[in-house]
Amino acid sequence: MSKKISYLAGAMLLAGTGSALAKEGMFTPEQLPQISADLKKTGLEISPESLSDLTDFPMGAIVSLGGCSASFVSDKGLAVTNHHCARGSVQYNSTAENNYLKNGFLAKKIGEELPAAPGTRMYVTVEFSDVTDKILGKLDEKVTGRERFDAIVDMQKQLIQECESEPGYRCSVPSFYNGKEYKLIKQLEIQDVRIAYAPADSVGKYGGDIDNWMWPRHTGDFSFYRAYVGKDGKPAEYAEDNVPYQPEHVLKVSAAGLKDGDFVMAAGYPGSTDRYARLVAVKHTFNWLYPTYIDLIETWIDTIEKAAPEASDARIKYEATLAGLNNFLKNTKGQIAGAKRVGLVERREQREQALNKWLSSAGMRESQLETIAKLDEVEKQQSALSKQTFWYRNITRPQLLSAAQRLYRNAIEQQKPDAEREPGYQDRDQSRLKESMQRIERRFDSNVDKAVWATFIKQYLQQPADARIAAFDEALGLSADTSSAQVDEILADYYKQTEMNQADYRLALIDAAPQAFKTSDDPFVKLAVALYDTEMENEDRAKSLSGESKALTPGYMQAIIDWQKSQGSLAYPDANSTLRVTYGNVLGGSPKDGLIYEPFTRLQGILEKDTGESPFNAPEKQLKLIREETFGPYKMASINSVPVNFLSDLDSTGGNSGSATMNGRAELVGLLFDGTFESVNSDWDFDPKTTRTIHVDTRYMLWVMEYVDGATNLIEEMDVVK
Amino acid sequence: MSKKISYLAGAMLLAGTGSALAKEGMFTPEQLPQISADLKKTGLEISPESLSDLTDFPMGAIVSLGGCSASFVSDKGLAVTNHHCARGSVQYNSTAENNYLKNGFLAKKIGEELPAAPGTRMYVTVEFSDVTDKILGKLDEKVTGRERFDAIVDMQKQLIQECESEPGYRCSVPSFYNGKEYKLIKQLEIQDVRIAYAPADSVGKYGGDIDNWMWPRHTGDFSFYRAYVGKDGKPAEYAEDNVPYQPEHVLKVSAAGLKDGDFVMAAGYPGSTDRYARLVAVKHTFNWLYPTYIDLIETWIDTIEKAAPEASDARIKYEATLAGLNNFLKNTKGQIAGAKRVGLVERREQREQALNKWLSSAGMRESQLETIAKLDEVEKQQSALSKQTFWYRNITRPQLLSAAQRLYRNAIEQQKPDAEREPGYQDRDQSRLKESMQRIERRFDSNVDKAVWATFIKQYLQQPADARIAAFDEALGLSADTSSAQVDEILADYYKQTEMNQADYRLALIDAAPQAFKTSDDPFVKLAVALYDTEMENEDRAKSLSGESKALTPGYMQAIIDWQKSQGSLAYPDANSTLRVTYGNVLGGSPKDGLIYEPFTRLQGILEKDTGESPFNAPEKQLKLIREETFGPYKMASINSVPVNFLSDLDSTGGNSGSATMNGRAELVGLLFDGTFESVNSDWDFDPKTTRTIHVDTRYMLWVMEYVDGATNLIEEMDVVK
Repeated sequence: MSKKISYLAGAMLLAGTGSALAKEGMFTPEQLPQISADLKKTGLEISPESLSDLTDFPMGAIVSLGGCSASFVSDKGLAVTNHHCARGSVQYNSTAENNYLKNGFLAKKIGEELPAAPGTRMYVTVEFSDVTDKILGKLDEKVTGRERFDAIVDMQKQLIQECESEPGYRCSVPSFYNGKEYKLIKQLEIQDVRIAYAPADSVGKYGGDIDNWMWPRHTGDFSFYRAYVGKDGKPAEYAEDNVPYQPEHVLKVSAAGLKDGDFVMAAGYPGSTDRYARLVAVKHTFNWLYPTYIDLIETWIDTIEKAAPEASDARIKYEATLAGLNNFLKNTKGQIAGAKRVGLVERREQREQALNKWLSSAGMRESQLETIAKLDEVEKQQSALSKQTFWYRNITRPQLLSAAQRLYRNAIEQQKPDAEREPGYQDRDQSRLKESMQRIERRFDSNVDKAVWATFIKQYLQQPADARIAAFDEALGLSADTSSAQVDEILADYYKQTEMNQADYRLALIDAAPQAFKTSDDPFVKLAVALYDTEMENEDRAKSLSGESKALTPGYMQAIIDWQKSQGSLAYPDANSTLRVTYGNVLGGSPKDGLIYEPFTRLQGILEKDTGESPFNAPEKQLKLIREETFGPYKMASINSVPVNFLSDLDSTGGNSGSATMNGRAELVGLLFDGTFESVNSDWDFDPKTTRTIHVDTRYMLWVMEYVDGATNLIEEMDVVK
Repeated sequence: MSKKISYLAGAMLLAGTGSALAKEGMFTPEQLPQISADLKKTGLEISPESLSDLTDFPMGAIVSLGGCSASFVSDKGLAVTNHHCARGSVQYNSTAENNYLKNGFLAKKIGEELPAAPGTRMYVTVEFSDVTDKILGKLDEKVTGRERFDAIVDMQKQLIQECESEPGYRCSVPSFYNGKEYKLIKQLEIQDVRIAYAPADSVGKYGGDIDNWMWPRHTGDFSFYRAYVGKDGKPAEYAEDNVPYQPEHVLKVSAAGLKDGDFVMAAGYPGSTDRYARLVAVKHTFNWLYPTYIDLIETWIDTIEKAAPEASDARIKYEATLAGLNNFLKNTKGQIAGAKRVGLVERREQREQALNKWLSSAGMRESQLETIAKLDEVEKQQSALSKQTFWYRNITRPQLLSAAQRLYRNAIEQQKPDAEREPGYQDRDQSRLKESMQRIERRFDSNVDKAVWATFIKQYLQQPADARIAAFDEALGLSADTSSAQVDEILADYYKQTEMNQADYRLALIDAAPQAFKTSDDPFVKLAVALYDTEMENEDRAKSLSGESKALTPGYMQAIIDWQKSQGSLAYPDANSTLRVTYGNVLGGSPKDGLIYEPFTRLQGILEKDTGESPFNAPEKQLKLIREETFGPYKMASINSVPVNFLSDLDSTGGNSGSATMNGRAELVGLLFDGTFESVNSDWDFDPKTTRTIHVDTRYMLWVMEYVDGATNLIEEMDVVK
């Protein structure tokens, strides 16, 4: 469920604002006791209180992979997640001789696992505390937006630095309710993560991109990592004599499974939502930003496809980029269609009117009404800024330019004491920066990068004069009269003369001083220097507006919380990559008139879909087992099959991938791995009629492990319960 | 439901052979009394005997449009059919000022109708008799295949000539059970057909090609013709003072409608099926012919799209051709997928083994086993011939060449007495030939025709020597060494020098003598003359094999009929464009694991689908009515809406379009207009699990007429019953 592409996400994220209805909700664990009556009514058997402690059972078993979720299923550090979350590690270990993507991988014994891809981490939450007072307590009401922004960031950095003083931990200070609350989260950072078992792509990625977001689904989207630590039990880099990590809490795995209507809950780390976005932001996004991006992405894809013809080496390098862009395109179109279907704009308008009415009638809420009006003014300015900087963002998309810009920024930040540096350029970030500078080649080709740049510049040149960026025009020698052929000549020189396409050159610049950039002859480095002031101006405007917004959103969110409470419901914070719980029931649906989704799919559906060609090429052994109806103890009588995937009405988004799906006793019954296409708009507005989340059933996981892949060692290691 | 493209159909039809199971069956009306018990059990309320007389109620109300079906719904000649069957007539009358496709058309009074497109006919069956004895009775057992073929055709022509001696009638002698039986059918040929009412494309073609073969569906696929005759009550060409035809039988129209599970039957003129095809033919079709055609059609489409760029005048002329080719491609791919899904080849193999076993065990059936073995030998030769003539068919695809070939053939046939001419070239066929020669321009462009020809010739040149056609190579001066550029030069001259692209020139050739063709300087005419002997040789081989097959299929079909009977079921003849009845129930389905089709769609589904852009651009008035839930007396309480389309398990194919769908009292409850994508393979093998037929509900028709289009005059004219 790759809902957002990271390199676009920044540009697309807007300040958020709105309300909650029906069974929606990505609750923080500590909120759950407040809705214990509904949890019990829905089917939770264990006490709601037991869910509220992040470091106790069962939440202590839920870990983050940074972008994905996972959970411990044995006291020897075995953690289960989605195949698509671990696939990069499988790919990293694959060679022509040992193609684990094609054949799958199974360590038959502890110690035979393969190292995960570089940078793979497992984060186990160990402490969690409210630091709102520390962040906001001393803030002067009168400061400017920029001052407020900087003061908050400074305090966050300070808290993180203190928290990370003990080695082996990673800390963060995310905001909740859009700046109303702040929490300090301390996580054990396990660095030695190994791949223990992954089924073949033909099981784990069955249906591939064609079935992405689709139902009916038959994807075995599960894999197992094993966490290792040093002999002292503390996080350590990969070493042969490291030992399996012993988690404090572990989930039991259910082989009994679920039936239609059963209670389910999922715990994981959803990335971001915009449920409380103000109408101003909704309109900006759906009426301008998304349609504009659709055109942009289509042009972008077209440019890459032409510059990197099919089967060329360049195409291979850009396959992942193209897949990401196509994924983004499909998602954005789905969001626009979904917004239209549910009447997002009209609903948001009605919600704001209803909130205003309540605030007016509740009396003494005058100040909140004022706050909201001011917030909308800031939102308008943010929308305007998003439009104004649109072309700047496009003409700085080439990879070599953005790398040069990051390196130059790093050099400048390095001049400051660590605590004063921009987040992302501190000491704690240097190893990641280095990794990213090393990795560029894997997804880069000069001709393609140049073609993309040329496309954007040529479109930029057709914009009115006030959309032009003086520093950029001057640096490249562009004017209103510059012809298309002249642009091509200019860019040809850039790519001919640069050394930024060499990893060594880039890595050397990580430690270079700003002066070295200023005197460099490299055209991309020179351009990065030339654009720095523009970059800083844009950043200042964005931070100032963000700071102004931060002064107002707490009041707006408080209004939302109070209003919701007056209606008997509990407002939850927008997703922010922290641990959340969503609960509901196994439930099919009707995505559109005349069509019904059944809640479970069957093994036989794999036979129906199978064409023998990827992505519908299940292993012959599996097909044979299905034809022979070898279902074993995993058969669900009511469907006369082993259930493969199932649907629920849970509330999820990108980042939830790999989340443990649990029954009322907190036993693992599946893994959350996707949402239906009709749900892609739910980040903005949860539609209880069409939103459905897709899970892989533990009965299918166990069936594949036992009958197809012979992963009996893992079945024995886990606590499988009936 | 355009299942086959006429210009490909000839090449794709193969002698047919096989068996019947489950509820499938396109029964001839006279067969129905034999299955009266099942008809009653399924829900027929009127007597099964009453369905068996083609000229009595209700069958007398069912008419053919030649390729589509229709039924009379008023005693003033009003007949209802599908919008897609009448759309050509709407298009014919449309201009930029009066765009009836866009706005719909309604004659508010009798006499204000518009003439249908030239060539539109309505055929009312008046006589029906068995002529098997006359056709086969005097045939000598010992004749050759060619002699048998010719003798049968001669007898058919003779019967037709006698039958058509009374003016105003069109007669035919179709074979049933693949040559086992022959019937003489006499039909009143109504020539003055007028369009009385057609909703706008945005209702009648809602969903367009995207929704073609798809469920859920929301298409208002209905239109009304009115039949006119001379003042003497006899068929006459269009004249202003013609009067409405008074049909003897008329269907009542139900406003009460159906519910899930209700009995339904449809009566219409299905085109062709291959349910009894032998395994040899099935394998040839699915293993060679269809895959080969998929490549061919893809190349063909590609060539047209390149030669006729989007928005060019040429593209407009080829839109219909491209739509047809794409439709054919989608259908053929669907058939291959369907054959794989149901295991067509394996099932046919099993069926043939079971039949053989029964024939062996039944004793005294030795001769039938021998007949079947001989038939399979002929089938093998027919498959081989289909492969051998594949490239001849391709290099003669350009429209100007095939027109020249038809005209030259016509000139030669004209030398013979009318009775001895090839069917299609008799006096009765001359007006149609003339019409087709006039019409070429509408779908023709020299550059596109040339590009298509060049593509096929270049592929042909890469074939081995034994695939080459000497007469063709000699005429064009082609050899193994001819380069691609040389081909282009040769073809350029053809199109530069020809006058075949002028209608006047073509029409003049209709009456020209063979000598005029032989001495012509026109390159296409010369080529037609040069290819004539090859054409005749191919035809002779095909007719000889067909004659041999005709000697054997009656024995094979008798074996099938007896075998079916021994199992308690009634074999029905393959579809042959004659009146058939199929019956069953309103029934949803599960096209694949995890997905369920509901039996009815709702008005609200139109709101869901609507994008405002064709083909999902319902009229604003209609959308408003739906939003306001103005359902009137047409509401179906169980779905809280007016039902738009519904599914049944009826057995249908191309030609069934427009068929009257009737309830157990033979009241009109809908019009059959399509099958689901999972059904496209049913022409070869009826799969009771997935085959579903799609109908438009009379409640939706009446709702659109009353609320959207104000066609109250027609509602009043019909006998609408509750």
